Amino acid sequence: MTDIHHPLSAVRSNQVVIQGGYWGERQTTNCTRTIPAIYHQLKITNRTDAWHLHGGDADPRHDHQIVHKFWDSDLGKWLEAVGYSLDNHADPELERLADEVIATIEAGQLPDGYLNSYFTVVEPDQKWRNLRDWHELYDAGHLMEAANAYFQATGKRTLLDTLVRFADHIDARFGPGDHQRHGYCGHPEVELGLVKLYRATGERRYLNLAKYFVDERGQSPNFFDIEAAERGDDPTKFWAKSYHYCQAHAPLREQKTATGHAVRAAYLYAGAADIAAETGDQSLLETCRVLWDDLTSKQMYITGGLGPAHANEGFTFGYDLPNESAYAETCASIALVFWAKSMFDIDPDSRYTDVMERALYNGVMSGVSHEGSEFFYANPLASYPYVNPHEHFSGINSARYYRRSEWFVCPCCPPNLARVVANLGTYFTSHSADTIFLHLYNHSHIRIPLATGTVQLDQETHYPWAGDVQLTVRVEQPMPFKLALRIPDWCHHFSLRVNGQTTSADVQRGYALIDRVWSNGDRVELSLTMPVERIASHPNVRHNAGHIALQRGPIIYCLEEVDNGSNLANVIIPREAKLLGQTDSSLLGGVGVITGEGARVEPATWAGGLYQPQSKLQYTTQPISLKAIPYSLWANREPGEMRVWLREQ
Amino acid sequence: MTDIHHPLSAVRSNQVVIQGGYWGERQTTNCTRTIPAIYHQLKITNRTDAWHLHGGDADPRHDHQIVHKFWDSDLGKWLEAVGYSLDNHADPELERLADEVIATIEAGQLPDGYLNSYFTVVEPDQKWRNLRDWHELYDAGHLMEAANAYFQATGKRTLLDTLVRFADHIDARFGPGDHQRHGYCGHPEVELGLVKLYRATGERRYLNLAKYFVDERGQSPNFFDIEAAERGDDPTKFWAKSYHYCQAHAPLREQKTATGHAVRAAYLYAGAADIAAETGDQSLLETCRVLWDDLTSKQMYITGGLGPAHANEGFTFGYDLPNESAYAETCASIALVFWAKSMFDIDPDSRYTDVMERALYNGVMSGVSHEGSEFFYANPLASYPYVNPHEHFSGINSARYYRRSEWFVCPCCPPNLARVVANLGTYFTSHSADTIFLHLYNHSHIRIPLATGTVQLDQETHYPWAGDVQLTVRVEQPMPFKLALRIPDWCHHFSLRVNGQTTSADVQRGYALIDRVWSNGDRVELSLTMPVERIASHPNVRHNAGHIALQRGPIIYCLEEVDNGSNLANVIIPREAKLLGQTDSSLLGGVGVITGEGARVEPATWAGGLYQPQSKLQYTTQPISLKAIPYSLWANREPGEMRVWLREQ
Repeated sequence: MTDIHHPLSAVRSNQVVIQGGYWGERQTTNCTRTIPAIYHQLKITNRTDAWHLHGGDADPRHDHQIVHKFWDSDLGKWLEAVGYSLDNHADPELERLADEVIATIEAGQLPDGYLNSYFTVVEPDQKWRNLRDWHELYDAGHLMEAANAYFQATGKRTLLDTLVRFADHIDARFGPGDHQRHGYCGHPEVELGLVKLYRATGERRYLNLAKYFVDERGQSPNFFDIEAAERGDDPTKFWAKSYHYCQAHAPLREQKTATGHAVRAAYLYAGAADIAAETGDQSLLETCRVLWDDLTSKQMYITGGLGPAHANEGFTFGYDLPNESAYAETCASIALVFWAKSMFDIDPDSRYTDVMERALYNGVMSGVSHEGSEFFYANPLASYPYVNPHEHFSGINSARYYRRSEWFVCPCCPPNLARVVANLGTYFTSHSADTIFLHLYNHSHIRIPLATGTVQLDQETHYPWAGDVQLTVRVEQPMPFKLALRIPDWCHHFSLRVNGQTTSADVQRGYALIDRVWSNGDRVELSLTMPVERIASHPNVRHNAGHIALQRGPIIYCLEEVDNGSNLANVIIPREAKLLGQTDSSLLGGVGVITGEGARVEPATWAGGLYQPQSKLQYTTQPISLKAIPYSLWANREPGEMRVWLREQ
Repeated sequence: MTDIHHPLSAVRSNQVVIQGGYWGERQTTNCTRTIPAIYHQLKITNRTDAWHLHGGDADPRHDHQIVHKFWDSDLGKWLEAVGYSLDNHADPELERLADEVIATIEAGQLPDGYLNSYFTVVEPDQKWRNLRDWHELYDAGHLMEAANAYFQATGKRTLLDTLVRFADHIDARFGPGDHQRHGYCGHPEVELGLVKLYRATGERRYLNLAKYFVDERGQSPNFFDIEAAERGDDPTKFWAKSYHYCQAHAPLREQKTATGHAVRAAYLYAGAADIAAETGDQSLLETCRVLWDDLTSKQMYITGGLGPAHANEGFTFGYDLPNESAYAETCASIALVFWAKSMFDIDPDSRYTDVMERALYNGVMSGVSHEGSEFFYANPLASYPYVNPHEHFSGINSARYYRRSEWFVCPCCPPNLARVVANLGTYFTSHSADTIFLHLYNHSHIRIPLATGTVQLDQETHYPWAGDVQLTVRVEQPMPFKLALRIPDWCHHFSLRVNGQTTSADVQRGYALIDRVWSNGDRVELSLTMPVERIASHPNVRHNAGHIALQRGPIIYCLEEVDNGSNLANVIIPREAKLLGQTDSSLLGGVGVITGEGARVEPATWAGGLYQPQSKLQYTTQPISLKAIPYSLWANREPGEMRVWLREQ
């Protein structure tokens, strides 16, 4: 349909006005609750004034309980979220707060362009000494993304100019030249930031630097070995044991499996895809495809969660997807969304946008409470009273339930959620000169500038709770273009009508293509059959053997104790159980639920002890009414057990 | 049957000559392979010369990769194993090696009686400064147990006298006096050692000191807070977060649940039981009973493994028994054996000895390879290719199988195995003045001194592979006594014949009692019906819902990939499957196996990806022949998957 030399165009968030429905409500909550709640936390933890704290003992950054070297990234992600939000809706008071923060950032910049609150104030002699662990380029990347978003929304150049000066500083210091450092950041992110800065300024040096960082990563001799030796550290005593952790064990183009810290991995891959888009680098695209296949076919939770292991916050090996101990960091699913969209725009195929949708509705949105001000860092797929080994190393005999928190010592996830929800419009659509791809369905008004004129689409739907989508095309005069509507992977039957006439659209790479001359007011009706599906895992996923998950449309459901009682492991979904998808208007503002027939299988009596011969037991199968709610909404009511994968019979 | 004021007598290991069969072979391997292999490791790691290394930079103890502050305990446990082994069978060469080691220990003792290779040589100014973490009393306890065993076996007093001097030093330093330290060890063990030293010497101060340590533990103000403050440390920054870790969060008599580090817990409880036995302390016995009930009814693996969590090497909360991530340290099951036997001797009931047998055959013996020189530290109940988060923090995409090791940085388990197997005879029987309790069945010759004369029992059996046990009573002249034969909890039907005549014995607290005047040559035939049992877990154990374990006699079985193929999670045991217990003479010297009908349930085809709607799948149920082997023998052949809990249908 297109090739990498002509990547599709993304739209700005404000070209998609999301009107109510699932995402409209989420965007409103993001605006009114999440962004202010995060600002409050940034303020009370002194992040908003970080460049101007004096660095003495009174400086909270000296207490490692509450400081990390990447404070600036938290500020950056919040400013980026504010940028997108202002692009969607003016908010003078929010803009004033952001301008204040931006002024402190600008004032904190050193004359040579260097910018980092920790290394400017707390350890000024330690700049650039540990790229592996200390996140200066990671911070820079997030501030660049913020600068791009804020400039785009407000036209104000202060933050953009500040980051341009910092980017120039970085570009002078790092690169292939003899007098430059051949380094790159332990935590990928600056690659994404530099591409955005390139897009905002047109300065190709930034794109080249991003590509340099990707290409230099993992080369021999390894830069992290070199700088460790320079610091007087033993490179073999890297705390994370292996450079797999930061995807620097080999050059990226030689990597075949998603590995290490999941957020680092997905940021790197997303950055590589962006660079491939801008440079037409076919081999980099191939690398991304190989990693995409590995990750999505062997290492992705059904929720779009990534990274099963707490130990490395990341990947382990294929088909290793434990549920209760799943790490599945919110940020990793967000990074997957970035990557998916970038992949689609250079390799248009619903394999990417299906995953994007899966992650958005499930693994991303589980990261924030329905009310909008509490957050998950890890997103397990089953939950029981538990002992957090980090908080209660002693394993004391008191367990509690996993709940969302207002903030974290490392609060990367909350502002990441804020920016992805504020920028949601950009994930709705992509376009070439003559084709509009529609990825996400939600009540909305979309404006696309094609080569031959602007197209507006009015989208009416109750998606994701129902599968009917109505589109009205607004054009100034009749014009030909192709409308490509995603037929989601979960949908096995769909129908399409144009102006009331059934149309048998050609489905290419997951998109139903309608190629016609469109007139103003043309009406498209897409009907996606949305039954309750019982989903099985690949037979190599040992954790889910004998279990199914319930899915309806793009939504993965779960059982919670509050609806279904405790000991959910004893609840069975019979093979022939009738399961009904419907909307429960009384639940959390009105959401889809699945109700149906289940059974609770337990011994009628238990003689005592932990183990009994089955020959002495009489099992009873008690029919029960099940109620499953969207996974992303768990832990919004009374604490209790939760399960996504349910025993079947 | 008896009360705490008249505890039963244990026998010395050498009063039970184990002749072949399961335990005979294990004892032979222990003698010929395990004890020499451990000596080799002690030697090459310099532990045998620890007191005479000079403490400079060349001292391996400066490298914390290979040294810990409790080296002496490793030596102590090995010497204790040697003592029991020499008590069973003379071995002049082994005795010479032990005498050499003992000479270095004695020579390392300071003039004031202090004894610890680390704090004598490496950090001489740090003695007794951190009882919470530094294990000096723990080391002392293991050396006391060694001294007792070696003196008992050889009559040589060198080690005993050395430890008496050290015990006197400890007794002077610690206690309730105004000028004494009100401390106790972070790792219980010295309580067990002091009771043995009391039994060896008759010196009641040692018993009193053991009781003092138990009673002082967890009192307010907490000693660990006090000593931390004395060191200038912040007591609230205890690395293990809570004194639950070392059972010092409350006085023992107020503790109701087994908590914290499992080995520490079970050593403490076993020590408390020994003290209760020697002092008649009924409240301490009650405490032990409460903890026993909690531990065995809520926190014990079916293998007798204890402590699910790696994080604290210990307990979490009731019914939390994950299989694949089970820690279940070998030492913890060994400690459970000690505790069980001590509990029985003051509260004779098969509830203790049933657990003792369960732990011995399963969770203890899984700790050592069949060949005898490789060891498990953790004993998971399911195994897959895995990434060790400690070794591969990066979560690299290469997984391997869990296998036994020749040694560990902290090698507590190997010599613990050696000592328990060498001392196995002591667990076979207990006796009062007029009653002989027989706990364990194995081909053996047992000699018991009753008040009225010595009784010898010749035991002939193929137990644990078959349930028939023949006992021949040898007495010099007819004498009355009660013979109490354990009817194991796994046995639902038994028959008993005395001199060919069926006898309906009274079963009291799990023991079939035969009260008669015995003549020389009297013959008892006990027949324990030993079918294959399908065992279910308590319905609160979420990990085992829908699963069963296979047990026959005292043996818990498992499936291994080498016999049954991979993806064992897809193997089903149908409800009505015929399962046959038999001996496989070709397997690892001849062991019981369970064979029978199983099924492999898998989708006939898989269209790709990780998740598929079940409506698109066709499952095939392929009948297969299952072969289960004793859990304790897993990982002795080709590496592969293993599972104890099997899906049923």
